[in-house]
Parts: sequence; C-alpha cells; structure tokens
Amino acid sequence: MLILSALVAVVPQGELEGDATPPPPVAERLVERALADNRAHALLADLVAAAPQRLAGSPGMARAREWAKATMTALGLENVRVEPVTVPRWERGETATLTGDGVRFDVAALGGSIGTPEGGITAPVLMVRSFEELRARADEAKGRIVFFNRPMPRVLRNTFRAYGAAVPQRGNGAIEAAKVGAVAAIVRSMTTLLDDLPHTGTLRYEDGVPPIPAAAISTNGAEALAARIAEQGTVELTLRLDCRPAGEGRCGNVVGEIRGTRAPEEIVLIGAHLDAWDLGHGAHDDGAGCVHCLEAVRLILACGLRPARTVRVVLFTNEENGLRGARGYAEAHADELAAHVAALETDRGGFEPKGFDTTLEEAARRRLVPALAPLRELGMGALIEGGGGADISVLRPHGVPLFGLIVADHRYFDFHHSAADVLGAVNERELALGAAAVAAMTVVLADPELFPR
Amino acid sequence: MLILSALVAVVPQGELEGDATPPPPVAERLVERALADNRAHALLADLVAAAPQRLAGSPGMARAREWAKATMTALGLENVRVEPVTVPRWERGETATLTGDGVRFDVAALGGSIGTPEGGITAPVLMVRSFEELRARADEAKGRIVFFNRPMPRVLRNTFRAYGAAVPQRGNGAIEAAKVGAVAAIVRSMTTLLDDLPHTGTLRYEDGVPPIPAAAISTNGAEALAARIAEQGTVELTLRLDCRPAGEGRCGNVVGEIRGTRAPEEIVLIGAHLDAWDLGHGAHDDGAGCVHCLEAVRLILACGLRPARTVRVVLFTNEENGLRGARGYAEAHADELAAHVAALETDRGGFEPKGFDTTLEEAARRRLVPALAPLRELGMGALIEGGGGADISVLRPHGVPLFGLIVADHRYFDFHHSAADVLGAVNERELALGAAAVAAMTVVLADPELFPR
Repeated sequence: MLILSALVAVVPQGELEGDATPPPPVAERLVERALADNRAHALLADLVAAAPQRLAGSPGMARAREWAKATMTALGLENVRVEPVTVPRWERGETATLTGDGVRFDVAALGGSIGTPEGGITAPVLMVRSFEELRARADEAKGRIVFFNRPMPRVLRNTFRAYGAAVPQRGNGAIEAAKVGAVAAIVRSMTTLLDDLPHTGTLRYEDGVPPIPAAAISTNGAEALAARIAEQGTVELTLRLDCRPAGEGRCGNVVGEIRGTRAPEEIVLIGAHLDAWDLGHGAHDDGAGCVHCLEAVRLILACGLRPARTVRVVLFTNEENGLRGARGYAEAHADELAAHVAALETDRGGFEPKGFDTTLEEAARRRLVPALAPLRELGMGALIEGGGGADISVLRPHGVPLFGLIVADHRYFDFHHSAADVLGAVNERELALGAAAVAAMTVVLADPELFPR
Repeated sequence: MLILSALVAVVPQGELEGDATPPPPVAERLVERALADNRAHALLADLVAAAPQRLAGSPGMARAREWAKATMTALGLENVRVEPVTVPRWERGETATLTGDGVRFDVAALGGSIGTPEGGITAPVLMVRSFEELRARADEAKGRIVFFNRPMPRVLRNTFRAYGAAVPQRGNGAIEAAKVGAVAAIVRSMTTLLDDLPHTGTLRYEDGVPPIPAAAISTNGAEALAARIAEQGTVELTLRLDCRPAGEGRCGNVVGEIRGTRAPEEIVLIGAHLDAWDLGHGAHDDGAGCVHCLEAVRLILACGLRPARTVRVVLFTNEENGLRGARGYAEAHADELAAHVAALETDRGGFEPKGFDTTLEEAARRRLVPALAPLRELGMGALIEGGGGADISVLRPHGVPLFGLIVADHRYFDFHHSAADVLGAVNERELALGAAAVAAMTVVLADPELFPR
C-alpha cells in the first residue's frame, strides 16, 4: 500500500513561513523545505530502481547516466550533458567461494582482482594482522593463501579513521602477499560490525609484482577462520573466483548547471559519484551523495534562490576503482579550472549532516565561519580541516578550495561496499537534511559577498 | 557464524590510554572504553532474548525484572532489589482487524482499549484531521467509527515535537469520539514514515464518557483509507478487537546502587523504563535506555571511578501506560526525596547522543556548562532547557533537578511502538556512545565539586 503521491506531497509555502513574521534564514528555509517536501528519498528510490548496479563501464552505469541526465533536465538544470571518460572495466563473474576443512566461508572478489584457475587455488592459509607481521614471516608465505585479519579499530570515534587504519591490507594486500610468494589473498572485511557479509572494494596491482587473486571475507567468517587456525595450526582452503579485468570501456560524468545571475563565469562545483560497487545498490555509497546534489539544486530553485555564481553539479564515474572520472573532468576543463571558486563533494553516506571539512587554511576558514551561523544553529555548520573528498581532490593542485560534507559516521561501515547498502538502509529525514546542508553551503559558496575569492 | 566472545572482547587498557601521556579527560576515557569493550549491544541482545515482551504486569515483565536483578548483581551494584508497585493490566488478545469494502487494513489495538463485541463493530467511517473538525462535524459522528488522520508534521526538525503535535488524537481520541456519539476510533499511527506497521501506544478513558474501542492504523493504511473515502464518499468498515483491560497486578521497579564514597547519603538517580509495548521488543523504547544506565555504571566501575555521591539505577515499570512505577518510587522514597541531588532519564532511543535537556534554571545551567566541556568536545555535551523525562517528572515537585539524554531523533519514530522496534534497529556504536554519555554526566552530577547542591 505504498502511495507515492504522498511521498512527494508538498506542504503549502504559507504553512512553512507563517504570514506576518519575517522570513527565516536561508538555511532554515532550505531545511524546512527539504523535510516538508520529502523528495530526497523518493529520488534515491528512483535511482536504485533505474540502475541498482553501477560499476563504471557496465551497462548498469549506462542506465544510471541516462537517469541522471533525465533527472537533471527535469529539475530545470541547464547545459545537461555526459562528458565521456574511458574507464577500466571489471566483471565480477558468478563464482566466489572459499571452501575446505568442511566449511564454506562468505567471500566476495575484491574489485579489480584477477580470477583463479577454474579448479580454484588450494593452499594452506597463513594468517597475519599486519604487513610487518607478513614481512617477519615471509619465509612461511610461499605457496600460501595469505589471510589479512586486522580489524578496523573499534575504539576510534571516527569510523573513517578506523577505516584508514585497516584498509591498506585491502588495497595493497595482494601486492604485499605476492612479493613474499603467496598465491592468493583473503582480507577481513572493512566494517566495525561482526556480520556475515563480505564488503568488497578496490585492490591494486604493481608492475613487476605478479598479480594474485584476492577476496574479502565477512568479519564473522574471519573470526571463525582465525579460530580454526588457532585450534588446528594449519587450515588448507580452496579459493575459487571467476572475476576478471575486462579491458577499458566508455563511460562518462554527468554534468548540469544552474547558471549564475551576476558572476556566471565563476563556478561552484558540487559533486558525488554515480558509480558504485555491485554487491548492494550503492544507496549510501554514493547514491545518497548524488541525491544530495540533485535535491540541493531543486531546493535552491524551489526556495526561489538564484545564485550569483554558476552552480555546477558533477556526478562522477569510476570513483571506486580509478578516479578516471575526476581526472577526466580536470583534463577536459583544464582551461576553466581557475574559474572554479570552490568544489564540494558528498561521499560519506546519507546520514545526519554535521558540517564540512575543508582544505581552506585557518585564516580563510575563520573568515567563512560567520556565514555558516545559520547552519550551526541547525547543528550542521561545523567547519574543520580536511580533504573534502576523493573526486574533487584532483582540483586541489589547481588551488580550488575543497569542501566535504561531514555526516554522522557510526553506521556507514555497517553498509559500505556490501549487500546491505540498499534503499532501506537510508533514512528519509537524514537524507533530506543532508541535501539541505549541501544546498545551504552551496548558496554561501556561490555568493561573492559571503565567500569572496 | 556469530561469535559472541568477540562481541565482548576487551581492548587492553594500555592501548586505550597510551603509556607516557597524561590520562585523557574522564568523558573521553568512558567513550573509548565503551567503544572498545562494545558491551552495550550484547547486553541489549541479552535483555530482548530474556524478555522480548514486557507489558507492565505481564509474565514477560516478570522475566525482565529477574533479568535486571541478575544483571545488576553481576555488574557489582549494591542493594539490588525489586520495589513492588501495583499496575493496571491489559491483554492485547489475538484479534485486531479492520475490514470491509473488499480490503483489510493493518491495525493494532491501542494500549488500554476495551475490545469490540465478538462480531466486531460495523459502521461508516468519519475521517477528521483534528478535534476541532470533529466538534464542527459532531452531528455526523453518531454511530460512526471516527478516523483521526492527522499526520505528524514532517516539517518540524525535532521529531518529538512532531509527535507532540499529533499524539493527542491517540491519547484522547476515544474520549472525544465517544463524546459525540461515535462507536469506535481509528487513529493514524504516530510515525513520520509511510509504512505498513501499526504503531500502538496508550489511550485514556474519562469518567462519565462511555469507553469505546480504539486502534492504530498504519500510515500507508491511513493514506489508502483516506483515498477510498475521497473516492467513494462513504466507506463502511468492521473493527474487531479482542483486547481487554484485566484489572490490576503486581509489578515492580528494579533498583541497584553504587554507594557513594564521600557523600553516600546524597543520591543521583539514573533511570529508564523496563516495561515496553508488545508489538516489537522495545529495543529502542526503552531497552536502550535500560542498557544506557546499566552500561554506564559498568563503565564507571571499569574505568576505576568511585563517585562521591551514591548513584542509584532505577528501571521503572509502567511508564507506557500509567507511570505507576514512577509514582510508586516517589511514594516509597518520600522521606528520601530531599536527598536526591539530581535525576537523569534516558528514554529517547539508542541513537547518537547529543547532550541533555534539564529543568535547571538558566543561571544554574550556566554554572554547569564548564564541567561539560569534555562532553562537548565529543559532540555530546549540549545542555538545553527541557523536562528530562516522564518517569523522573514525579520528582520535579520535590525540587529535584532533572536531566534527560538527548539523542539524534530522526529515526526514532520509524520504530516507536511498532513491530520494527527490535534489536537490529539499534546500532552497536550509537548505543555504546549513549551509555558513555550517561556515564560521563553521572560522574559530573555525582561530584559535589562539579555539581554543588
């Protein structure tokens, strides 16, 4: 009995603003509008229905681009287009199993991994907690499957820092294992939860080091495997993967604009990535970010705001496995990068917004603080030092100030890169508030008085 | 492959605090300990396994009391006891249906409702959005089923305020409908979501007004029913409920203490309610609050803190449908209420903590602000004006300052009083942080230097 019309019901403007009182600050209007209209979640539902799987270079990603173009056009953006980029392609295949010793563990190929020979790779497992331990035990690694079992440190308050502490074993595990003669790598999933889902993500190979297949194992699986190794000393397992790198393919970033009224040649870029890992539907990562940007421009227009500078929405491809979308954007717009006044990225999930991190230096940061007072009143105006985001990082060498939406991060890795990253994991109100925060920050950045160059 | 031992694995103290650096502030130690030990969620799992249904006066609630006593004892609390209270009993029965016109809507009896006659009550439905509309249409109500269909206003940023705006139709709808001659009441569920779950909650009857049966209908059901009424003018439905009030029964509050070291006669009460509505498992409402309090005292003891004042944990009964637990506490401890230096309640779900509301007047609030600096650093130190909570409100006339844990509230009504309020709805990290916030505030309130009388 889902009634879509109710999902997009609009509270009459009069109810929001009252009649006799002065209008509230812009940020408050945007937040109220976002909550009352409640469009963000319906838009995300639309995206994951149109293109649930969005690996860069895949047919699903082509559908996502069509969806994004149509949506931008319907929202009233101008200059809507796909800017072509060539991306590495990779196919997950059908088979990912880790078996032996009477059990089967939950695994998924890491993105970019080569497959195993058809019969799989059978070898004893060497468990390590760090690269240091691997190097110290290098003579035990030859011919083995190396099992990287370092958990994300739960004690860290910021889960992204906990991710940063553990994720090198996923990114570089296959390289480090191959260097000491291992035949495959198994990596504990990057999540603070104990769950039964493998969480995938990209791996790297290095020229001169033989590529070996690598897979993520669920955290419960990792605990169980570690317990077996502790009990038995040696466990021999068979890894079967039929994933494969598949050359390169055509893909693209989707771009649209609200042309500025008074300084249209000055650009504020707001962006997210449209590609996603394929185990779930990329609802948080980064469907939520795409919706933040699209709903932000809808809110800006719906509230009758007409930014002085041009607001350019860029939905990047290939953030997950190569940043080719971001690099392609920087190349294609090389002439125009000096006109980029700011770039804002949202890629931390559809949770309650807290504020922004920024590459601005302290003095510039302090100058921006007063303009964010209305956002701070709403609990979403923090401004701290940070990198902004992966896609927009390509603009940093060109002197563009970067901003990244900060959201409540405790639940992000419950879903990240796993089958759990689906629509139901995203709360309507939290997603809407994130869009309002992006909208309010965009309005500030697009105003030459509030954010002079 | 769930491995419980890993859920309660403890990071060695040395890793948390470093060796050569000075110890961090108490609040930070409590937070790190809470995240590292990760005990809160396992404790909640234990509660909902031992006593998933905890209606005051029910056998399930008796199991919950046994669990709470055993848990408090195991945690090292002193003077652990059940303080008896007599509570109204109510049985939901087996049947709750609203049918007719070829459809069946999702309904659940409101707590305390009488049942219908065995064949149900069949009558045309009168939909209203407010008591004002009901009174204006009083002559249409006689012999009808009144359908209260006022949504929680989505636009309000604070969902508890949105609840407050809509919930009178649940609490008083049966009275107001009966006053104008209606034979039953149907109330739109109190949730900001559109979902298929009825959300229950208590109703009142009034002396001199005939009691009529009343049920909650899911928000999707309410939308569908409203659409039918709009299309057809009249819809006749049959409500069948076999719930019944069942007199009074014995129940009790569960109480335990950490005796104060230097001022043991001064009491800081921290509390939550152990009873819960029965459609789900009361995981957020208020299993999370009970766990906050229990885990808070564990954290205080585990961090080697020995409060000067006595910390008394009270897990109240009958918060949901009468406050008899709270009133019984105030009566039983009448001689001792002047010794209550503060009371803290947590009953807003197991979400990320933000701070506290308090009945303290502004000057006293301002004096407390410096002591909360370490909590503010952690994003959980807000101190705003408010009522604290329903159970501790009975202490307000006795001059006891009240404090209520404030948490992120956007998701609360997704689960509240419905079948969705189960363990999986509560995030491990958010729950643990809430417990740390309660622990840190308790440490402040139990310190005569930081919080003088």
